[in-house]
Amino acid sequence: MLENEVRFGKLKEECGVFGVYNKDRFDVARLTYHGLYALQHRGQESAGIAVNDEGIILQHKDMGLVPEIFNEVVLNHLKGKIAIGHVRYSTTGASLRENAQPMVVNYKNGQLALGHNGNLVNAAELRNRMEENGAIFQTTSDTEVIANLISRYRIGSDNIEDTLKNMMKDIRGSYALVIVTPKRLIGIRDPHGLRPLCIGLLENTYILASESCALDSVGAEFVRDVNPGEIVLIGEGGLTSIQTEASQQTSLCIFEFVYFARPDSTIDGVSVYQAWIEAGRRLAREHPADADVVIGAPDGGLNAALGFSRESGIPYGQGLLKNRYVGRTFIQPEQGKRESGVRIKFNAMKSEVAGKRVVMVDDSIVRGTTTRRIVQMLKDAGAKEVHMRVSSPPYKYPCYFGIDISSSSQLVASKHSVEEIRKMIGADSLGYLSLEELLKTPVGSRCSFCTACFNCCYPMEVPDEGDKLAE
Amino acid sequence: MLENEVRFGKLKEECGVFGVYNKDRFDVARLTYHGLYALQHRGQESAGIAVNDEGIILQHKDMGLVPEIFNEVVLNHLKGKIAIGHVRYSTTGASLRENAQPMVVNYKNGQLALGHNGNLVNAAELRNRMEENGAIFQTTSDTEVIANLISRYRIGSDNIEDTLKNMMKDIRGSYALVIVTPKRLIGIRDPHGLRPLCIGLLENTYILASESCALDSVGAEFVRDVNPGEIVLIGEGGLTSIQTEASQQTSLCIFEFVYFARPDSTIDGVSVYQAWIEAGRRLAREHPADADVVIGAPDGGLNAALGFSRESGIPYGQGLLKNRYVGRTFIQPEQGKRESGVRIKFNAMKSEVAGKRVVMVDDSIVRGTTTRRIVQMLKDAGAKEVHMRVSSPPYKYPCYFGIDISSSSQLVASKHSVEEIRKMIGADSLGYLSLEELLKTPVGSRCSFCTACFNCCYPMEVPDEGDKLAE
Amino acid sequence: MLENEVRFGKLKEECGVFGVYNKDRFDVARLTYHGLYALQHRGQESAGIAVNDEGIILQHKDMGLVPEIFNEVVLNHLKGKIAIGHVRYSTTGASLRENAQPMVVNYKNGQLALGHNGNLVNAAELRNRMEENGAIFQTTSDTEVIANLISRYRIGSDNIEDTLKNMMKDIRGSYALVIVTPKRLIGIRDPHGLRPLCIGLLENTYILASESCALDSVGAEFVRDVNPGEIVLIGEGGLTSIQTEASQQTSLCIFEFVYFARPDSTIDGVSVYQAWIEAGRRLAREHPADADVVIGAPDGGLNAALGFSRESGIPYGQGLLKNRYVGRTFIQPEQGKRESGVRIKFNAMKSEVAGKRVVMVDDSIVRGTTTRRIVQMLKDAGAKEVHMRVSSPPYKYPCYFGIDISSSSQLVASKHSVEEIRKMIGADSLGYLSLEELLKTPVGSRCSFCTACFNCCYPMEVPDEGDKLAE
Amino acid sequence: MLENEVRFGKLKEECGVFGVYNKDRFDVARLTYHGLYALQHRGQESAGIAVNDEGIILQHKDMGLVPEIFNEVVLNHLKGKIAIGHVRYSTTGASLRENAQPMVVNYKNGQLALGHNGNLVNAAELRNRMEENGAIFQTTSDTEVIANLISRYRIGSDNIEDTLKNMMKDIRGSYALVIVTPKRLIGIRDPHGLRPLCIGLLENTYILASESCALDSVGAEFVRDVNPGEIVLIGEGGLTSIQTEASQQTSLCIFEFVYFARPDSTIDGVSVYQAWIEAGRRLAREHPADADVVIGAPDGGLNAALGFSRESGIPYGQGLLKNRYVGRTFIQPEQGKRESGVRIKFNAMKSEVAGKRVVMVDDSIVRGTTTRRIVQMLKDAGAKEVHMRVSSPPYKYPCYFGIDISSSSQLVASKHSVEEIRKMIGADSLGYLSLEELLKTPVGSRCSFCTACFNCCYPMEVPDEGDKLAE
Repeated sequence: MLENEVRFGKLKEECGVFGVYNKDRFDVARLTYHGLYALQHRGQESAGIAVNDEGIILQHKDMGLVPEIFNEVVLNHLKGKIAIGHVRYSTTGASLRENAQPMVVNYKNGQLALGHNGNLVNAAELRNRMEENGAIFQTTSDTEVIANLISRYRIGSDNIEDTLKNMMKDIRGSYALVIVTPKRLIGIRDPHGLRPLCIGLLENTYILASESCALDSVGAEFVRDVNPGEIVLIGEGGLTSIQTEASQQTSLCIFEFVYFARPDSTIDGVSVYQAWIEAGRRLAREHPADADVVIGAPDGGLNAALGFSRESGIPYGQGLLKNRYVGRTFIQPEQGKRESGVRIKFNAMKSEVAGKRVVMVDDSIVRGTTTRRIVQMLKDAGAKEVHMRVSSPPYKYPCYFGIDISSSSQLVASKHSVEEIRKMIGADSLGYLSLEELLKTPVGSRCSFCTACFNCCYPMEVPDEGDKLAE
Repeated sequence: MLENEVRFGKLKEECGVFGVYNKDRFDVARLTYHGLYALQHRGQESAGIAVNDEGIILQHKDMGLVPEIFNEVVLNHLKGKIAIGHVRYSTTGASLRENAQPMVVNYKNGQLALGHNGNLVNAAELRNRMEENGAIFQTTSDTEVIANLISRYRIGSDNIEDTLKNMMKDIRGSYALVIVTPKRLIGIRDPHGLRPLCIGLLENTYILASESCALDSVGAEFVRDVNPGEIVLIGEGGLTSIQTEASQQTSLCIFEFVYFARPDSTIDGVSVYQAWIEAGRRLAREHPADADVVIGAPDGGLNAALGFSRESGIPYGQGLLKNRYVGRTFIQPEQGKRESGVRIKFNAMKSEVAGKRVVMVDDSIVRGTTTRRIVQMLKDAGAKEVHMRVSSPPYKYPCYFGIDISSSSQLVASKHSVEEIRKMIGADSLGYLSLEELLKTPVGSRCSFCTACFNCCYPMEVPDEGDKLAE
Repeated sequence: MLENEVRFGKLKEECGVFGVYNKDRFDVARLTYHGLYALQHRGQESAGIAVNDEGIILQHKDMGLVPEIFNEVVLNHLKGKIAIGHVRYSTTGASLRENAQPMVVNYKNGQLALGHNGNLVNAAELRNRMEENGAIFQTTSDTEVIANLISRYRIGSDNIEDTLKNMMKDIRGSYALVIVTPKRLIGIRDPHGLRPLCIGLLENTYILASESCALDSVGAEFVRDVNPGEIVLIGEGGLTSIQTEASQQTSLCIFEFVYFARPDSTIDGVSVYQAWIEAGRRLAREHPADADVVIGAPDGGLNAALGFSRESGIPYGQGLLKNRYVGRTFIQPEQGKRESGVRIKFNAMKSEVAGKRVVMVDDSIVRGTTTRRIVQMLKDAGAKEVHMRVSSPPYKYPCYFGIDISSSSQLVASKHSVEEIRKMIGADSLGYLSLEELLKTPVGSRCSFCTACFNCCYPMEVPDEGDKLAE
Repeated sequence: MLENEVRFGKLKEECGVFGVYNKDRFDVARLTYHGLYALQHRGQESAGIAVNDEGIILQHKDMGLVPEIFNEVVLNHLKGKIAIGHVRYSTTGASLRENAQPMVVNYKNGQLALGHNGNLVNAAELRNRMEENGAIFQTTSDTEVIANLISRYRIGSDNIEDTLKNMMKDIRGSYALVIVTPKRLIGIRDPHGLRPLCIGLLENTYILASESCALDSVGAEFVRDVNPGEIVLIGEGGLTSIQTEASQQTSLCIFEFVYFARPDSTIDGVSVYQAWIEAGRRLAREHPADADVVIGAPDGGLNAALGFSRESGIPYGQGLLKNRYVGRTFIQPEQGKRESGVRIKFNAMKSEVAGKRVVMVDDSIVRGTTTRRIVQMLKDAGAKEVHMRVSSPPYKYPCYFGIDISSSSQLVASKHSVEEIRKMIGADSLGYLSLEELLKTPVGSRCSFCTACFNCCYPMEVPDEGDKLAE
């Protein structure tokens, strides 16, 4: 259910970044457009593309989905040989157009554009430090902090490499960065490797992307992931790499596999789809159920349900239908007793669940309200029993690296036992995949994971809860 | 693949209709809004709602999706006790705002609003006849023909019942009609029952809808289908029914099960989902394959693939991912050799298909081009073999009842043998479900079916191909 | 003040029509676009263009101003050799997109497009008659009545000429019509000549327009006015004329000179500008004032003020400034005592009026409220005396020919004497131009005038006030 | 003609600023909205309002006109006790949303919003200096330079007063600034007084505005102009003033009287309307003409024409009509021989000019092309002679203080003699008001003027032409 609550504003989502370098001025903006399309699931609030045209940066960004923001005229205007793009998460509240990315800045050495996926934990401290020296900030985004640091370090430095290394020493948190300098496309992944970033090649064109599905979308070959703590610089001479000091223990956000990434992506050597299937299999072993059909909560639970079915031998079916057209401007039905019967966003597939014992698999339970309604919907459709299975552990602790909810008080699991939650959602049984098992699902991963939202083990010092900046 | 070709304008789609009668002036417009949401899959070009407010008809309609057209202000304006709504199919070419429905007309006895799903085969003839008498037509829609007939017959008649019976004697073709008169909500289904229409009840509120999923969406109970040739009139005294002479052999459009209807709907007693599962099972028996995984082409082939997997025992998997964000304003990639590798709308799930023999199930093959690209995509992703299975017979003949394509020349099956098509799409084998088997898939249906698009057996006289009106 | 009250919805305004015939398929839509631009003052609610392309009529129309509705893409789409265009007045209340013109209809002999400026007095009667015969009406506009009549008469007739003559016998009221038939451009002016229509020539291109300023705007030469009761038909063979029985006494709406027409237009041989100057001169003779400066209320009173100044010898000055940017979506200031000092739409020119005796000339006083505020504004700015002069007689009776206000109760002059009005508006003296004098202002006019709004002498039978159709 | 060329993008225009302080949280955003409406003539590209709500700054700004950008919902959202607003000039080329003002920044002491009218001549130098210290710039506007300076000086300073004084020592150029700090509304006028700024009072509400017409629009009383070099600080304790070192010789931009300001404004004690009338009078004395009518080029030449008429005794008339609806999205007529006759934006009033010797007064001649077309139009309408009179001297030198044109090569007067220009425009005679006479037109002004655009006497050192930043 995570996806559905996120899509409607309860959670912040991730962002997605994309970058292209082509020395022949091939249509880099159009490639970026298609790359962002493939990354749209990582952010639906705003999108932007910045292109370096002989040192001058042209850009276009706005609130909305990629196809709403760009058209042929705009893309044709964005000529150049280096481009970066960004899609940004959806938040509630006021439109914050100023926070749309990429951010373009003028500094001593010319123009620079940055796109950032992640969240710094010491941004406020760094802002204060720079404000003490007279800096002003026009947005509330971490990206502006990073841009200021780059600008400051560039002054005392002969080259961009040292500048970036110095900047990386200052910032703490999660980041996958794409940067356009007057001459180069740069990609940086934080030392813990919290956010993914990978490299692709399309003939002689280098590409950087948050996920490999964006490489597929433009027909590029996957080359490799950017390593935690690595800076890649792509210029006329090709790609060069600087490995800064990475964390001894890398910490890829486990949520990339549990929720964020597209199933056709491969991150750090692991297929997201296979991780989901594996999670379902392990869930079936850890929390078996005596049932007639396995269904998934669309769309986040479908693949784990498939894995559960494969492992348990219980047939897989489509037990819930999700209306593809319910979008951002949806008008709610009137309150009252009728509400209980309303099935606008989801509907149960009566012919699949009636008279059956149903296993329903989902990727997570956030507040529990949607899950309760769906369990009830299945029972109304005739399900004899509903066995809820969740392909991740209870989500209890706040994330400081990009997956924020206003406070942990909204997390049902932070205050309630599994049995209490089972009663709340009205299921006949409830089983969460244990963290131990979840960590085995990205079979063959070369990375270890950040699992702080499940076990409070943050890979670095984080601010006190009370210090979190209001949105 | 039918869905995907339709969504981008090669085919006309169906329409959807909805109607509400509530004597307490409950919020009928909002109910209709939610009903149309559930029927959005039947038409994405335009939508409209008309409300009868004490004999005056208020309406709002426009081009676009339901949530784009209506907002709280508009819905609050549409007060009344009878409402009808309509969603209309998507066509290429010029915006035809005038054709949006419902159509509101002033005639001798007051105001009338009509919503029509279907297609008349003798509309041109009827238009000519009325034009001979001086009528003018402001749209190209059949609905205006029906409105004119109603108006003309109403003059010589004491009551609306006779008027409608006379009108039904004149028109030939497919129609599910919802009508608001100054006092009543009326539903009519054509004598062949080509288009579906059902009745629901929400406390004391009567509802008419093209599909039962729209009843579910507003929390209403399914009462029954409107019978072929039946007129239902809903007024202060409740529902009354007039059974006009129905065709001896009813002819529900088989495409409702093969393609149009939402899987959670039940039409004429048959679950659409179960019909799809059954089609997949029969396809597995008729055209078995020696394979390692069964996948469906999203979204039309998914449920039949599930049925194929259940019958054959070959595991079901998600072998193709469809980008949910590719919409109407999508910008194409640049032409050229790169195109072959571009995977924008679909992507193959490498980890599911690599090294495997794959059965891919789809609901249809229209022109074959998309299918060819997907087969290639699967092979590029490492599939050893691709066995294509189609859950309907080759689609060869034009439809005159609502599913038009410009000419049968675009139908790959009308000019090519199965083997020729197999070669064109590059599959290792190809099997279509036979018509005989397809007709067995709506298990327990009380209707017989129109299968003219497969076998040229039209349930009534149809115009010569050459006579078809240009769009 | 008439203009200002009209612009914000208290009055209906006129419409404007335009037509082009060019046998070489010169860009007729673009000519029409520029013609409508020049006629925009006659209607700001909606605009439309219809083009006859080899018998098929293409059209585009929408709510809004001409430049908001049309762009290069649309104009390029509207190819053909005959075009008509229409701008429509502004009303309060709901958007009535259906009423936008031209209206395109299909009838026995093909397609027809009509644009109408005027108002029928027997439309309801004609609608009823046709509804008795089964006709349906989709709009509330008179144009649809005319289209239906044309269609009906065309059936029993060999030619369009007789059809139009028969139609003209049926309809009563004001009308300037432009019509596109499959082969011809047609212009018709009602037998009383209530609404203007003129003919222009641009090389071999014939043009019809409501006012001669539209001819100027496209560089065409003025040929002549269409005569009252005349039908002009423009086709391959050039222009032919049919003079139907005109009224013995023509009745051009005097308001065209007092208010509607653009000052650079010439109607029925008379310069609108000169008529305004003459009205000011006669006003100065009829109601002289002992004053230091003459000012006009922008924009309607400016030219009459100039005439007043010329005749009286009192200097002309700009005493009031009107904010050009106050438009349709203007947000009102908060109510309260502050309001009195607020000068958003108008401001007094202190340096021109302070310490002076001011003559203020306006074209009319409708409700009196705006006039009262402006008089007060002038006094606050230091004017010693304000002598109000109105360049038309008191406006007392409703118009049935296109200039409707909801009821005469809103007309301050219908219930109050001149002295009462003077007190209400706070002026030191008040003088209206007499009807006798007003009729002398269009010097050299070949027409006589309809002055019903001033003296209740309607040129034909009109409905009882109570019978007027609600908007 | 200046106005008309400016409106369509050949020139940059000025900006307008507005500020309100009301301790009772009266609706300051709505007051600002109406103030900006009155200042809309100073900038049509973008508009914005920023409100200080208990130290937090809320803002809304966008491209477009004031009524297009704001609505009730937005204004209700902008609650607070201090507000500033800004309207910005129109430029050609790409939409530069980032440059819209006010600019809101976070700095050491909280949030700050600035609105700036004017242009710095040493902005590039200041940017470079700050970039050397690591500052980054996200816009190309001078306002960001000012914001950075304020931020930097605030650090080493105990109070805002010293900060502002230091900032003013650094910047050179023209500026009228309105600033919101956490506690105060601040207004600053540059030491030369190049741009106007005045103070108003509405009960207990202080107001700052570029022109006095904005005070009128909200019903406020004019208090006084801000003095050159003065800082006014408005807070809980009322208004305090700091007089920094002003230039010995003040230099109000003479163009404010010649072109920018609204005629109902009073700047530095002089009525703009009276200055225009006076310019016309002096023009009549300096360049008399033997003629029958005096007309003005709308709208910039109308008042000077009135002055010319009063002085010369030649009757004033409306010889040209300007179409009020020709706006930003206007589609040009097709090129070719027809163009010469096209009169879309202007039309000559034949009945006023035919057979007459005409004096046409305009405020300026920029490139001469529009003037040539209008002279021709008058002759085509029958004018026997056209005597062109310009109420300002030839405009020859670039302005560095806000009225930029890309280069002086576009100024017809910079390369041609008066006689050459006369021939180019086809007039029978041509006379420009001399600078000596122009300087006498703001009768009673307490300021002296910057006249650099006429005589190259810049009030401060300006960059070389070649150094001007590309737009």
